[in-house]
Amino acid sequence: MSYNQIAGQKIGRVEALSDGVFSIAMTLLVFDLKLPVGAVIESEAALWEALVEMSPKFLTFLLSFLTLGIIWTGQTTQFHYVKRYDRTLTWYSLFFLMTVSLLPFSTSVLSAHIENKVSIGVYWLNLFAMGGILFLHWDYAYRNDYLDFAEKDAAFVNNAIRKRIIFAQRLYLVGVSLCFINPYISIAFIIGLQLYVIFQSKSKF
Amino acid sequence: MSYNQIAGQKIGRVEALSDGVFSIAMTLLVFDLKLPVGAVIESEAALWEALVEMSPKFLTFLLSFLTLGIIWTGQTTQFHYVKRYDRTLTWYSLFFLMTVSLLPFSTSVLSAHIENKVSIGVYWLNLFAMGGILFLHWDYAYRNDYLDFAEKDAAFVNNAIRKRIIFAQRLYLVGVSLCFINPYISIAFIIGLQLYVIFQSKSKF
Amino acid sequence: MSYNQIAGQKIGRVEALSDGVFSIAMTLLVFDLKLPVGAVIESEAALWEALVEMSPKFLTFLLSFLTLGIIWTGQTTQFHYVKRYDRTLTWYSLFFLMTVSLLPFSTSVLSAHIENKVSIGVYWLNLFAMGGILFLHWDYAYRNDYLDFAEKDAAFVNNAIRKRIIFAQRLYLVGVSLCFINPYISIAFIIGLQLYVIFQSKSKF
Amino acid sequence: MSYNQIAGQKIGRVEALSDGVFSIAMTLLVFDLKLPVGAVIESEAALWEALVEMSPKFLTFLLSFLTLGIIWTGQTTQFHYVKRYDRTLTWYSLFFLMTVSLLPFSTSVLSAHIENKVSIGVYWLNLFAMGGILFLHWDYAYRNDYLDFAEKDAAFVNNAIRKRIIFAQRLYLVGVSLCFINPYISIAFIIGLQLYVIFQSKSKF
Repeated sequence: MSYNQIAGQKIGRVEALSDGVFSIAMTLLVFDLKLPVGAVIESEAALWEALVEMSPKFLTFLLSFLTLGIIWTGQTTQFHYVKRYDRTLTWYSLFFLMTVSLLPFSTSVLSAHIENKVSIGVYWLNLFAMGGILFLHWDYAYRNDYLDFAEKDAAFVNNAIRKRIIFAQRLYLVGVSLCFINPYISIAFIIGLQLYVIFQSKSKF
Repeated sequence: MSYNQIAGQKIGRVEALSDGVFSIAMTLLVFDLKLPVGAVIESEAALWEALVEMSPKFLTFLLSFLTLGIIWTGQTTQFHYVKRYDRTLTWYSLFFLMTVSLLPFSTSVLSAHIENKVSIGVYWLNLFAMGGILFLHWDYAYRNDYLDFAEKDAAFVNNAIRKRIIFAQRLYLVGVSLCFINPYISIAFIIGLQLYVIFQSKSKF
Repeated sequence: MSYNQIAGQKIGRVEALSDGVFSIAMTLLVFDLKLPVGAVIESEAALWEALVEMSPKFLTFLLSFLTLGIIWTGQTTQFHYVKRYDRTLTWYSLFFLMTVSLLPFSTSVLSAHIENKVSIGVYWLNLFAMGGILFLHWDYAYRNDYLDFAEKDAAFVNNAIRKRIIFAQRLYLVGVSLCFINPYISIAFIIGLQLYVIFQSKSKF
Repeated sequence: MSYNQIAGQKIGRVEALSDGVFSIAMTLLVFDLKLPVGAVIESEAALWEALVEMSPKFLTFLLSFLTLGIIWTGQTTQFHYVKRYDRTLTWYSLFFLMTVSLLPFSTSVLSAHIENKVSIGVYWLNLFAMGGILFLHWDYAYRNDYLDFAEKDAAFVNNAIRKRIIFAQRLYLVGVSLCFINPYISIAFIIGLQLYVIFQSKSKF
């Protein structure tokens, strides 16, 4: 017997830490929304114009909030079935949360350099890492029998969760590739797609 | 059967995420409270004066804290009755939290440009979005039978929650319209109203 | 029957919101700890010196962390006995959390102007407001029979909680008054006192 | 009977506060990741270069995130067995959280002065304080019989938790001492070690 066998068994703590990290990451996105410092804004028209000029920042804010919402929903769905936990799963969750905590950084790089393909690459890498670790988290829990569902639902749930992540990652890859045509098309495609699947109750996303 | 049927069922996680976002939004309001950088404050009188000059910022801090408190109370009241959850409700909550996370931004725009009608318009839009989504959240839960209350209370609770939101939104609209007379009157009216209904135990707000 | 009767009954949500606000306030105190921007620090001695020069900031950090710890312990102790909740108690808690969220501001005013009596006054006002609202929170819960303890413990618990707050507030007043002699004595007195009562297991603080 | 006997008994609140402080500390680490302000980055190559130049910051981010993950796992493991709580344990936890909330500060000192031995010393002091208080927390709970485990597991669990902390602290000391050779070797050693023990399922770290 070793320390590793007794560590990391408290599912509730992992969930609480996750909700903390997600809620802070979501709220920190707003830090990127700032009226230009030092600009002299003295009329209604000037303030309106300053807000309009911030629109790339609103766009990346929306993009990242939707992304965090989708990935958070994905994680809570997994935890709906996870009934046991161990140190390995804890570390999957911790690395997952590391990528979540990095999203405000990737977003701020993207919003400051929205027409720069490197920033889109950094952002995509972040999306890929979040999805990938979430996939491994499920895979480990499934293979080690840490899940709890009715026998008849097992195959379906397992398939649905895996396919959803693969489906999302494929579309992110398509969306990001569009930056070779135009970065705004790329971002608009991803946002549009996310909104579509959120509001389409029968979607697979 | 699809992924959408298994996603977003964990009410506790939605509540935890909400409390996280609200507590951060509440605390971030304080970020706007800063003594002027670079100012030389060397006497008691100078510090006092600097604090007095910050009074518009204290005013908007109070305004937004009360607003967040009212809207948070409204959300917890809804969750008192919600007994089942699905992916659609989860997304109502996520969009709701997006508007909550934006309030520190709207507040900072308002406090920096308190006499500018556009900033009051931005702030109002935020208030409207928070109340509107909260209304839709309740409406969806009610129509889809996700609520749990004694038969005899159903009609009353449903009415009380809907009327409260509509009542608040009407008064916000009145308050905001007062900015065409004077922006300080507008803000003072809303703060006064909020304090009145908080302390008036028989109020409807 | 009115909306006010159905609002604010979820104790768990108030506790979660409180822990959120406290944890953020505690962590935000660290934002005040910053090496001087733009200073050229190129040797071990220079960095050491820069850290030593920050000692007033470390002092106020310690002061505020202890204060938040004491007041948080006080609040959790009250919630140990509170078994019912209503909208009025919810608003006591929300105003209480408003004063908690203001402490990082008061702290940063104090640490930037540690020899200025006005900043000590602002800080004291914050301490007084936190303690005062916590007292009213208990008083309301007690008078309205929202508490749950064994009959034989009621008088003792009620006394202990009230006396503790009054005792602390008196000493804060003494401590703060010492700023008329010297602000550092004032802060050192309060920190020393807090450490004393924390480590003195039989203390009354 | 005194106030101290009734204070600090709510384990759930301590856990919630801890998860809050940890999640904020983890997310605040990202604040250190910022593209140089004012730099003109106009090409893909320039952005790539700017990111590469940030690599010391990514290194310290990784270092501190792993550290927080390890120490968080250690704390949750202790709470898995703690079944009663009192005011003294509450204060151990509060001082522990104080050291956790300081880690983003130590990290930012380290990342800004990565080749400066004083900053490594500050960082090590922080590591030592976190581990030390966590050790005292367990020791107090064990000696005062606040733990709950099967009779047969008691000796093993007690040993495993103590040894883990001592083992980690020894290696931190070795790692930190390497800074007398080269600070990058020192940091790389600690990161490598942490990754090794995380992925080595049979490790003792």
